[in-house]
Amino acid sequence: MGVERSALLYEGKSKRVFATSDPDLVILEFKDDATAFNGVKHALISDKGRINCALSAYLFDRVREAGVDSHMVEKISDTELLCRNVEIVPVEVVVRNFVAGSLAKRYGLEEGGRLARPLVEFFYKSDDLNDPLMGWDVPVILGWTRDWEMAFMKEQALQVNVILCAFWDDLGIDLVDYKLEFGRRPGGALVLADEITPDGCRLWEKGTGRKLDKDVFRRDLGDLSATYHEVYQRVFGAELGA
Amino acid sequence: MGVERSALLYEGKSKRVFATSDPDLVILEFKDDATAFNGVKHALISDKGRINCALSAYLFDRVREAGVDSHMVEKISDTELLCRNVEIVPVEVVVRNFVAGSLAKRYGLEEGGRLARPLVEFFYKSDDLNDPLMGWDVPVILGWTRDWEMAFMKEQALQVNVILCAFWDDLGIDLVDYKLEFGRRPGGALVLADEITPDGCRLWEKGTGRKLDKDVFRRDLGDLSATYHEVYQRVFGAELGA
Repeated sequence: MGVERSALLYEGKSKRVFATSDPDLVILEFKDDATAFNGVKHALISDKGRINCALSAYLFDRVREAGVDSHMVEKISDTELLCRNVEIVPVEVVVRNFVAGSLAKRYGLEEGGRLARPLVEFFYKSDDLNDPLMGWDVPVILGWTRDWEMAFMKEQALQVNVILCAFWDDLGIDLVDYKLEFGRRPGGALVLADEITPDGCRLWEKGTGRKLDKDVFRRDLGDLSATYHEVYQRVFGAELGA
Repeated sequence: MGVERSALLYEGKSKRVFATSDPDLVILEFKDDATAFNGVKHALISDKGRINCALSAYLFDRVREAGVDSHMVEKISDTELLCRNVEIVPVEVVVRNFVAGSLAKRYGLEEGGRLARPLVEFFYKSDDLNDPLMGWDVPVILGWTRDWEMAFMKEQALQVNVILCAFWDDLGIDLVDYKLEFGRRPGGALVLADEITPDGCRLWEKGTGRKLDKDVFRRDLGDLSATYHEVYQRVFGAELGA
């Protein structure tokens, strides 16, 4: 497409966003950085940027085929996605199929049980406040989102869940939980944004329960780069090229 | 009524519940104990039991007149309410009209602003877990409540809010926020339960913002007994008798 990077608009923990010559398009660059516990733990993970870029592009394509639009236009390099420009909604939408992580801790539940049905939780996107949980009404009453946006995000998150559960299931993996973000387009329409990668998912190997996601890093369970390479291999049926 | 206390069924931080000769009736006794920060701070507050018993009885009467039923049958002594026996739903229902307390802290908001509309939040009733916040779906999916119970509690809480806001407003007091609990009757119907007292409300004097509730104790702002006596005086137009 010949789109070129211009100013760095935003640098996050695992991605950079660049402006382009077209004000409606941005470039998302995936970094090798892994962080946990709100940035307290940090490391560089070999090939993480390339693997997450490839997985995100692939999964955004799968959900789009199934009718859920996203900000992604196309993958333009090993570590870059060309995306439509959006204003990120300050809500992290978490979908859970099994009890794990903060859900287990918050309510004193044992990790590993499958929930009776998928649970959607909303968190206020704020590093300073450690992304606090919110009920549905809070962001609406405080003016951060609108009621229809909450409904839209919940419905899309559950639609994405059907697609992704089937996808990972076919690869012998349980999709335990994951985080989605949405963005506002000019005019106000919402689209799925950010990324879909093992950074923001919990993926457990069926049968063994072996973790194939960023918990390997958070909980010091092994080599995260090797884990991400394995996920890449399962998804694409081939090793990541040099 | 000639109902007599038998076995102590439950002792909480500020109340005791006794069985009676009628299995469908219990006696709620209000204690002088004040606690804060999940029991870490504790004191005996002179006349608190009598004042809270009188206020709860009075306010349960006011909300019943306005169509919201409760577990209360009648006040049977200075510190005791005769109540229908209920199984307490493990959900604390918090209604907020202004930004204060944990809402302010959780989302980095300044205390004191009036919310665009009343906010209802749900917390899992668990001292061990520090009463964690829950979205609507969590207790339903985990089997702690049913969807209709959540809807019922939210609707009743908002109905109670209209009644209580008008009540305190007439006394020159803003009802900032408060906690309600509900109980299941044999057969499954829900009724408002527990208590309605300044232990579980935030009450701010209009104009001055002076606190007339348990925050006086939590935040060491003065003499809690004198504060509760003042609230009693405002509600009943007379001093509490000896």
